[in-house]
Amino acid sequence: MMILRSGPASPFARKVRIAASVLGLTSQIELRPADLEDPADSLRVQNPLGKIPVLIGEDGNSYYDSRVIVEYLDHVAGGGRVIPKEGPARFEALKLQAHCDGILDACILLVYEGRFRPADKLVQSWVDRQNDKVARALKALEAAPPKIDAVPDVGQIAVACVLGYRDLRFGGTWRNEYPRLVEWHDTFAALVPSFNETKVKA
Amino acid sequence: MMILRSGPASPFARKVRIAASVLGLTSQIELRPADLEDPADSLRVQNPLGKIPVLIGEDGNSYYDSRVIVEYLDHVAGGGRVIPKEGPARFEALKLQAHCDGILDACILLVYEGRFRPADKLVQSWVDRQNDKVARALKALEAAPPKIDAVPDVGQIAVACVLGYRDLRFGGTWRNEYPRLVEWHDTFAALVPSFNETKVKA
Repeated sequence: MMILRSGPASPFARKVRIAASVLGLTSQIELRPADLEDPADSLRVQNPLGKIPVLIGEDGNSYYDSRVIVEYLDHVAGGGRVIPKEGPARFEALKLQAHCDGILDACILLVYEGRFRPADKLVQSWVDRQNDKVARALKALEAAPPKIDAVPDVGQIAVACVLGYRDLRFGGTWRNEYPRLVEWHDTFAALVPSFNETKVKA
Repeated sequence: MMILRSGPASPFARKVRIAASVLGLTSQIELRPADLEDPADSLRVQNPLGKIPVLIGEDGNSYYDSRVIVEYLDHVAGGGRVIPKEGPARFEALKLQAHCDGILDACILLVYEGRFRPADKLVQSWVDRQNDKVARALKALEAAPPKIDAVPDVGQIAVACVLGYRDLRFGGTWRNEYPRLVEWHDTFAALVPSFNETKVKA
């Protein structure tokens, strides 16, 4: 049995959980919540950075971050399934994942701006900077929505996690601006049941 | 000819440049600085997130972020050279890279706290939070310094970039705390000439 240290709202953990489901590995992974604020939580031993998700593999080793975990799970499942083994498809998937991880990093900094700072320490230019990154990167996706494979790759899974996180933490305002991504989202949700199964209420 | 959009002080660009050198690809890559603050810089077309490094490959495609670029360069160089193709060595290298990228992310947030916020908007608990991540993650490396292969893998290269960035932006105070990493650093520097070649003055 593998163990995934995670939290229900983490978009990076969601990427791992959807990948695990697509790979048929869900029943082999126990979800174990982590308390990022508790210094005594074993999370900080498993990952000194104190971040989730972390996977404890069947070999007892800890794997992080989400990209490494997905690679590991893909490997456990035989390889080349959510991460194409080679060719342009591989780099397309990896780049799309990096694009989406970058959006999520900016989103999380926006959430943290509220969570870890008193209101009078908020810096609007910093908030604008992160919002601009998100907007430019979503606009690029809207201009050329990625295809959705029958077995979605990690890039496609990451796109879904971005849109889901914009729904969860940012009121879903993206839906008014990016109609092709709304269609993309609905197609993905219909194809990949674990997307809705991993959804949390705002 | 490939093009690397980068800046001399970026630790993630340094990782790419050292990997390129180890792979024998330096002469095939033109370094082209990027102005992250200039909206008209083509950087934001090449990478909508507006981050460096970005590589324009020989196929004309843009590749980001640094992990994707190193994979691409490794592929161009024949594959399996700075990223082991399979087995435990692959995941060890990828996890070590993720560990180090996480340290660098925290370091960059610390630098940005000074660069993008007026002094009266600094939040000490946020600074402490990032410093704690860095300290825990460096301590883990000190406890078990990674080996250094004759052809260093991307994890080992990332460790060197972390230590170099702590020298550049944080006064090298790590040297007083982590003697085994000092030794590691010197061994790496002696083995990999591009480490010193990519060093910038503070």
